[in-house]
Amino acid sequence: MTEILETTDGVVDTLALASRLSDGHVADNVEILNQLDSDDAAAVLLLLPVEMSVQILDKPELHRGSEIIAALPRRTAIILLTEMSADVAADIVQRLDAPLRDELMDGLDRTTRATIENLLAYPENTAGAIMTTEFVSVPANWTVERTLQHIRQVERTRETVYAIYVLDPATRRLAGAVSLRRLIAGEPSDNIMSLAVATPVTTTPLADQEDVARLISKHDLLAVPVVDKAGHVLGIVTVDDIIDTIIEENTEDVQKFGGMEATDEPYLQVGLPGMIRKRGGWLCVLFLGEMLTASAMQHFEGELEKALVLTLFIPLIMSSGGNSGSQATSLLIRALALREVKLGDWWRVALRELPTGLILGAMLGAIGLVRVMVWQKLGIFDYGEHWVLVGFTVAAALIGVVTFGSVAGSMLPFLLQRVGFDPASASAPFVATLVDVTGLMIYFSVALLILRGTLL
Amino acid sequence: MTEILETTDGVVDTLALASRLSDGHVADNVEILNQLDSDDAAAVLLLLPVEMSVQILDKPELHRGSEIIAALPRRTAIILLTEMSADVAADIVQRLDAPLRDELMDGLDRTTRATIENLLAYPENTAGAIMTTEFVSVPANWTVERTLQHIRQVERTRETVYAIYVLDPATRRLAGAVSLRRLIAGEPSDNIMSLAVATPVTTTPLADQEDVARLISKHDLLAVPVVDKAGHVLGIVTVDDIIDTIIEENTEDVQKFGGMEATDEPYLQVGLPGMIRKRGGWLCVLFLGEMLTASAMQHFEGELEKALVLTLFIPLIMSSGGNSGSQATSLLIRALALREVKLGDWWRVALRELPTGLILGAMLGAIGLVRVMVWQKLGIFDYGEHWVLVGFTVAAALIGVVTFGSVAGSMLPFLLQRVGFDPASASAPFVATLVDVTGLMIYFSVALLILRGTLL
Repeated sequence: MTEILETTDGVVDTLALASRLSDGHVADNVEILNQLDSDDAAAVLLLLPVEMSVQILDKPELHRGSEIIAALPRRTAIILLTEMSADVAADIVQRLDAPLRDELMDGLDRTTRATIENLLAYPENTAGAIMTTEFVSVPANWTVERTLQHIRQVERTRETVYAIYVLDPATRRLAGAVSLRRLIAGEPSDNIMSLAVATPVTTTPLADQEDVARLISKHDLLAVPVVDKAGHVLGIVTVDDIIDTIIEENTEDVQKFGGMEATDEPYLQVGLPGMIRKRGGWLCVLFLGEMLTASAMQHFEGELEKALVLTLFIPLIMSSGGNSGSQATSLLIRALALREVKLGDWWRVALRELPTGLILGAMLGAIGLVRVMVWQKLGIFDYGEHWVLVGFTVAAALIGVVTFGSVAGSMLPFLLQRVGFDPASASAPFVATLVDVTGLMIYFSVALLILRGTLL
Repeated sequence: MTEILETTDGVVDTLALASRLSDGHVADNVEILNQLDSDDAAAVLLLLPVEMSVQILDKPELHRGSEIIAALPRRTAIILLTEMSADVAADIVQRLDAPLRDELMDGLDRTTRATIENLLAYPENTAGAIMTTEFVSVPANWTVERTLQHIRQVERTRETVYAIYVLDPATRRLAGAVSLRRLIAGEPSDNIMSLAVATPVTTTPLADQEDVARLISKHDLLAVPVVDKAGHVLGIVTVDDIIDTIIEENTEDVQKFGGMEATDEPYLQVGLPGMIRKRGGWLCVLFLGEMLTASAMQHFEGELEKALVLTLFIPLIMSSGGNSGSQATSLLIRALALREVKLGDWWRVALRELPTGLILGAMLGAIGLVRVMVWQKLGIFDYGEHWVLVGFTVAAALIGVVTFGSVAGSMLPFLLQRVGFDPASASAPFVATLVDVTGLMIYFSVALLILRGTLL
């Protein structure tokens, strides 16, 4: 694609590009602009019809939206910010540097400025921060016909018109909701409330965006109104905002589970210093935790000297505990996120993981025992005169470590949620580190029990 | 909640429950029915208005839909299957046992049966398998008014009416698409094509559902038409089907990344045998792979005997490699899933991971070196007369292992995609196992290099 963006001397032909983009799909245009630097993207936007520029800037998939706004002439930037969805405009304004942000905000008309300021007041990742204020609301004493007439007039300036919110004419509180499909099926002279759902599903401005996503998904909604304590509609969260949210949260969850801080930008756009920051912190924390394994081994140095054969199985046993822990953690992170289990279910989960861990541990223990026997009998390796006891030590340790891994791995997300953290912060490396240290203790304790008087 | 579902003798009061459910939100009713066994749930459904029962069965969140259908009288089951969304009905029919499935299918009217059979013919997780055939299409020579009239008539039997597909009257091929909001804003006498987008975004029946999700998210669509090679619309995939799909895929991705097979059911509903099956397979495979660490250590037994101090750092060094690998894998799984990087970008990624790994490894190496020095100087532990060399061995091994982990962890998803697997099959335990075995080799090689002539 890049080759058609540039002329032979490597300069972007903004004129040719703008003419091509004015006929294209918005989403494709966003992808093309994402390949340009912000100055070139701004130059192209300047040449496009305002309507297309607004649609492009409205897409959350556009990278560097705020840099593009910053690169535009002030006057154009103000026009585009005014025409854009207020929620996306707020997002862009938030990322601008202070002097430019104030300058642009001052240039906006009073209503737009107030709307953006209101949106910016809500904490990140809440319904209030991602909602749009461009929705359709009508008084409860209107007819179907009058409502339809109103929708025709405002259609172009609303993010969605498929859900219409009916307000009490006196208090302006939410009295009901009608879908457009029900509305057009109604008699023109009917009162709007005759078609409305009187108790629509609502959310609050401080609700977590993940909870809003769950609500929209559960009730198959196209939008959910954000209502304050008095019952006034502050805005709506639409289904396409929610899809973006879910995809973004999923990326964050996988990255956190992989043992790092979540990145905000696409992989190839995170610079080396940013990458080191996102990964180095956790890596160092895990490293410091894992240092306890060295301490544990130093503690058992005497045993190691007497029975060097035991060291051969350390990585095998420890990794098996980490693996079973990682499985249990992944299960519980999702089960908690989907509200399949609640905090109070922790003991039910523990009672399930205990037998699961014992059986899985016994399976691995059996394989481990067979391995020692086969290698010994075939003469591949000599585990010494007490090789049978060594085999049983390995098997028993595996049962203990895998069971501990399953139980600890499943309890960790509960513990994190209990103390107020996101259960999804329980990463696979974190669980592995936890299980590694304890796994070593289990292994050596089992060895002392079984091998005392022979090897130890 | 359970207490109000049962009378004092533990029997579910279906009558009281049905009367309560007939006033409730569909999604809440689904949650209540999910707590009953399928016989009780069927008894409650029998007492509900058909319309509510259909809405409940239509919800993908309902567990055991097919068991409930099986527990209903044949006649009721057939009525409900006929009234349900064809895509969900097909899903339920698919899970029934053969004799009952045939009996119910024979009872359906010809059109419904044909529709369900068509849907069942598509492979799982494709657009064809999740699409609904209940959409609105009109010939291109209709006016806005006639189209609106048609929508009013069919509204109740269509999954969505917010996207209207315009067909060529002669060939019945897709000629355009109109959104309902544009339609109601149009003049009644206008031709429908004057409002239509002539080249709507479409997908094919065999497209992967994840690609369809990406398409809907990218273009902010409420539905995408599934079109065959000739240009006929076979069905549509709606945004709420896609949200369910994305959430389900998220769960699968996290579970697979945790090193297990994805579960189809909520955590507490997977039985012990099912749990062992989903987890035991991978755990055994990983165990067999990890056995190579024992082989590697047996190979270096001579070195271990001479320098027992080296064993103390084995868990620390190996886990650090696994952790950096897990980070890199989580980054690349998501980057590939979101199409932020393509298969051909592998070398760009490798060139980024190499310096990232070197820097991260150097950070950990420095901490490791300091640890050895501090413990030695403070007299906490005696690493022997060559403790400085031991410290440098640990540091150098950490640089090598962490770099290898970053590069290998980032390349694994590419490799899997290249050979036709889902890149998300690259689990954290899988990467850890890969890095563990190689990490040992790196550690001992570095040790041989640095300590030859002193300890070794």
